[in-house]
Order: sequence, then C-alpha cells, then structure tokens
Amino acid sequence: MAIEAHHFLVKTTAQTDIVDITPQVTQEISRSSIQNGAVSLFIPGSTAALTTIEYESGAISDLREAIERMAPEGLYYEHNERWRDGNGYSHVRSALLGPSLHIPIIDGQMTLGTWQQIVLLDFDNRPRERRIIAQLIGE
Amino acid sequence: MAIEAHHFLVKTTAQTDIVDITPQVTQEISRSSIQNGAVSLFIPGSTAALTTIEYESGAISDLREAIERMAPEGLYYEHNERWRDGNGYSHVRSALLGPSLHIPIIDGQMTLGTWQQIVLLDFDNRPRERRIIAQLIGE
Amino acid sequence: MAIEAHHFLVKTTAQTDIVDITPQVTQEISRSSIQNGAVSLFIPGSTAALTTIEYESGAISDLREAIERMAPEGLYYEHNERWRDGNGYSHVRSALLGPSLHIPIIDGQMTLGTWQQIVLLDFDNRPRERRIIAQLIGE
Repeated sequence: MAIEAHHFLVKTTAQTDIVDITPQVTQEISRSSIQNGAVSLFIPGSTAALTTIEYESGAISDLREAIERMAPEGLYYEHNERWRDGNGYSHVRSALLGPSLHIPIIDGQMTLGTWQQIVLLDFDNRPRERRIIAQLIGE
Repeated sequence: MAIEAHHFLVKTTAQTDIVDITPQVTQEISRSSIQNGAVSLFIPGSTAALTTIEYESGAISDLREAIERMAPEGLYYEHNERWRDGNGYSHVRSALLGPSLHIPIIDGQMTLGTWQQIVLLDFDNRPRERRIIAQLIGE
Repeated sequence: MAIEAHHFLVKTTAQTDIVDITPQVTQEISRSSIQNGAVSLFIPGSTAALTTIEYESGAISDLREAIERMAPEGLYYEHNERWRDGNGYSHVRSALLGPSLHIPIIDGQMTLGTWQQIVLLDFDNRPRERRIIAQLIGE
C-alpha cells in the first residue's frame, strides 16, 4: 500500500469557468504506481469547487444557470463590504459545492460512468491559475 | 492495512427515487476484513448522487421538494436539445449533490448517527439498475 | 502506512451556527504520526454538515442566507408532522451540504488555501454538542 501526492495546474477564466480535468487526473494515475485504490481530489482556495457531470456544452450551461439561481452574482453580499473585490457570490457557491471528491481506481482505471467527467468550477471573478491536488492511495 | 473494492446493485424507479442503501453498505463491511478504517462510496454515472439523511418518508419528501426548487424538472434545459432524452434536470441535480461519500468505520461499525442513513438519489427520468462502489480501506 | 481515528467535540448554538473547526483539525494532525497523507472529516447526525469557506463574518452571513433561500426555515416540511420537533428544514439542509470532507496533508500541513477554513454547519434548531471524527491516513 502506498500514498502519493500529485498535483497539476489549470488556467481558468472569469464568468464561472467549468473545466473538464478528467484528462489531467487520468494522466496522474498513469504516472503513478497505483493500480487498485482511489484518487482523492482537492482544490485549495475558497472560490472554486469540484464535482462530476456529463461534459457537454448544454449540461454545462444548465449547471451554470442552476448555480446562478442558488447564489446570483447580482445580489447584495456582505462579504463585498470587507475586501471590495466583488466576489461574495464566488465564496458562497464554492462552499455549497465543496472542494473535495473521491473516485475509486480499479485495474488502473477510475470507475467513472461513460458520460461522467470530473470538473473544476472556478467561481472567482478574475482569471486564475488553480492547483489541483490528486492524492493517490492503493497498491 | 488493506484496500478492497466491493460493489452492489440497486434497482431504481423514475421520479427522483431516493433509496436507503445503508443495509447493503453494512453487509459489504461485514463481508470484508476491515474493522477500523473507512468506506468510500461512489456512484458511476451522471444522473445520480449520494448523501445522508434521516430516512423517514416526510424528510425524504421534503428533500425531493428542495431539489425540485433548485433544479425544477419543468424548466428549459439546453442539454435536452442535444440528446432529446429530457433528463437535463437530472444532470444538474447530480452535479449539485455529488457522487462520492466517505464514512469512517470504528470497531466494525460505520460512525453514522442514530437517525442518519446513506441514500442513493436517482434523478434519471427512467428506471435504472445502479452499481454502487464501496471501497474499504483499513485494518 | 497507518490509519488513526481521532475525534473532538464542538458546542453549537441554534440558528444555523457555522463554526471554524480548522484549529481543532490542525491540533489532531499535530497529535498524530501522519506527515503525508490525508484527513477525512465526518459528522455523525442528520442535521449538520461540513464544508470549507473563507471564515469572514460577511461570507458566513452570505452563506447562511443562500442556505435559507435553498431550504427556508418557514416553509411547510412534512417531516415536522412526524416528530413535532420543527427541524424539517435542518434535515434538508444537511442532506444538501453533506457530512464528509477529505483534505490532503503534505509535510504535516493540510493543503488548504490561505483564505480557506473548515467549517461545521449546525442546522438544528437547538444547541448541540457535536462530535467530529477526524480520520488520519498516511505515513
């Protein structure tokens, strides 16, 4: 049994960028010694999140609209009084969606469904370079 | 320390089926060698999710209504233009709730609260047979 | 490779108490033998949840309001017919936010962002003493 901490970088744009990071995670698994185990993904930072979805432009747009209904960008956010950076909505969205995700690996492959991709959601109101931690555990 | 990948199947109906899978998870733990560690649950697919709740018919109905408010079935979903399968709302709900869950095991028992059960939420608009992965790690 | 189950207690108040538990988790890590690995956090019970956010009073207030929009306290909840304890909204909020969180540890430190704290959200309508399980795995 081994545990390995990998990471990779992703450049994002503003306006709720939703990025398919499945290829990067797959690559980190192929670079590791783990054939049976799991990958735990984590995004440091308080204005982004991780989940899975069918990465199809319609579904991505639908998800963006649902998140806008849950925490609309144009509402009053008390957080904005503090730092004046206008990203109060980003913090709320990030807390609701969550920063971690855990996916089993069997015979060297993640057990994702055929139409299920891993996505980084960047809610911040400016472009960012994000570091994703992919922690691998297993044999 | 060992890691074991178990799985089990669950038949679901349409109309946001919410199924208590605590008995199946408990059974997989009792079949394993793990007494102290954790179980990581994962649902492959992009129209379902996992969480915990008190499995009582009122609370289940209340949860179903809250999810309907977050991503109403009757809204316009761009995803439906793509495949014409009418389950755009299912994909959005699944992405918001998330596919993974991690529960500690101490002395052979999950550390769930007395009124806390593990549920599979199937958001798809047709009956499915779902495969749940229960990955056990520990000693 | 070792796995250790730690826990700590947190006293909460009613009215959606959101508590920064980063210091307690940090302390459990420093008390453990794990330098490289992960901490899995879990809250037993069906009226609380865990996530991360910038722990700043404005952002916390904004998150509380977003959760109130998703599952308003004043709505009709069928769960309340069953036990008459009036916390139907608490159960729904807990199921939507989720009870588990997984954070990597590298060189003895969690990989949290600078402005990212771990929070316990207690949705129950009365003060509680909560037990948080911090399971550490690694080397």
